[in-house]
Amino acid sequence: MRGYFITFEGGEGAGKTSVLKAVEQRLLENGHEVVATREPGGIEIAENIRQIILDPSHTEMDGKTEALLYAAARRQHLVEKVLPALQEGKIVLCDRFIDSSLAYQGYARGLGMEEVFQINKFAISKCMPDLTLFFDIQPETGLKRIAANKQREKNRLDLENVKFHEKVYEAYQLLLDKFPGRIHSINADQPIDMVANAAYEKIVSFLH
Amino acid sequence: MRGYFITFEGGEGAGKTSVLKAVEQRLLENGHEVVATREPGGIEIAENIRQIILDPSHTEMDGKTEALLYAAARRQHLVEKVLPALQEGKIVLCDRFIDSSLAYQGYARGLGMEEVFQINKFAISKCMPDLTLFFDIQPETGLKRIAANKQREKNRLDLENVKFHEKVYEAYQLLLDKFPGRIHSINADQPIDMVANAAYEKIVSFLH
Repeated sequence: MRGYFITFEGGEGAGKTSVLKAVEQRLLENGHEVVATREPGGIEIAENIRQIILDPSHTEMDGKTEALLYAAARRQHLVEKVLPALQEGKIVLCDRFIDSSLAYQGYARGLGMEEVFQINKFAISKCMPDLTLFFDIQPETGLKRIAANKQREKNRLDLENVKFHEKVYEAYQLLLDKFPGRIHSINADQPIDMVANAAYEKIVSFLH
Repeated sequence: MRGYFITFEGGEGAGKTSVLKAVEQRLLENGHEVVATREPGGIEIAENIRQIILDPSHTEMDGKTEALLYAAARRQHLVEKVLPALQEGKIVLCDRFIDSSLAYQGYARGLGMEEVFQINKFAISKCMPDLTLFFDIQPETGLKRIAANKQREKNRLDLENVKFHEKVYEAYQLLLDKFPGRIHSINADQPIDMVANAAYEKIVSFLH
């Protein structure tokens, strides 16, 4: 029996990554077989592609080149890691997937959600997530959380201005409207334990 | 005034590369401004992408990952080299472009011409070639030419079997039908000087 493909989405500082770890732990404790991953997920080809995207000397990189590279890395991670796990009947928890490209590159960077969706459809064939959790927090609140967390390494996107993150938030609202059956919103503006609990409950009710 | 974007297409051993050089020379002698290029064209990002595609250790690379990487390299080469030259009013001669992806990956590798066209449309925005020359030679004849040319370094595609190259040829026939206004066939089964002459005449009549 094919497993379940569950993706975690949201803006910066929504707590996705911590929640994913907590949910993975609880699912394992309850006897589920789980693979927790995020792109590029240790896949050599995908890691190499990511190095090109993140290379700070590549200042001349065009937005569409970047979107195609993300789609290429996504494809390889999917084929090498996600699909085999699903075929073994496992639950795959993935930190960010197609919706991140639609929100960040399609909408916030202005490449066009529909166009970015097209190239990603090519990349993922028909493997859309079975369930997507959107961790809902106002961009300003999320960014304050990040600023307060000194241990967290700042990445390139953390440095974008608030306006950019507001656009990302807007994009996720559009995606919630577009995929109401797949994407479910979780209130992320509460203590992380409660967020994790809400996420876990949603997944368990989806599995049954 | 925008320049002209002219691409050279065909199977292996059709003589494209030699003909392109000869045509460039004659256009320059007649006072045209010309840029002769081929992907990745010395563009650092595109070269880095190509290294990932060609890395012999990447045996696990999926066909769609490869197609997305080619599209990414194409985008960057276009943005950094082709478009600026066209904006300066130059004639750009490019050895292989979108039709190669449609023929080799879309058709011969079986990814689907229409699907590969979609991701390439994203990559090139609306910058389709103004004129494309297809150098028409039977696959077997072309492969014999390559085999006879000891100086030519064999690449990965040269090593595919004849059946693969026959599929590539079939694909170009389909493209000629699909884009009769843009793609023109040149008989490449004649001495290279005559092929170059025919190509030059076609380009000159197109420019006028």
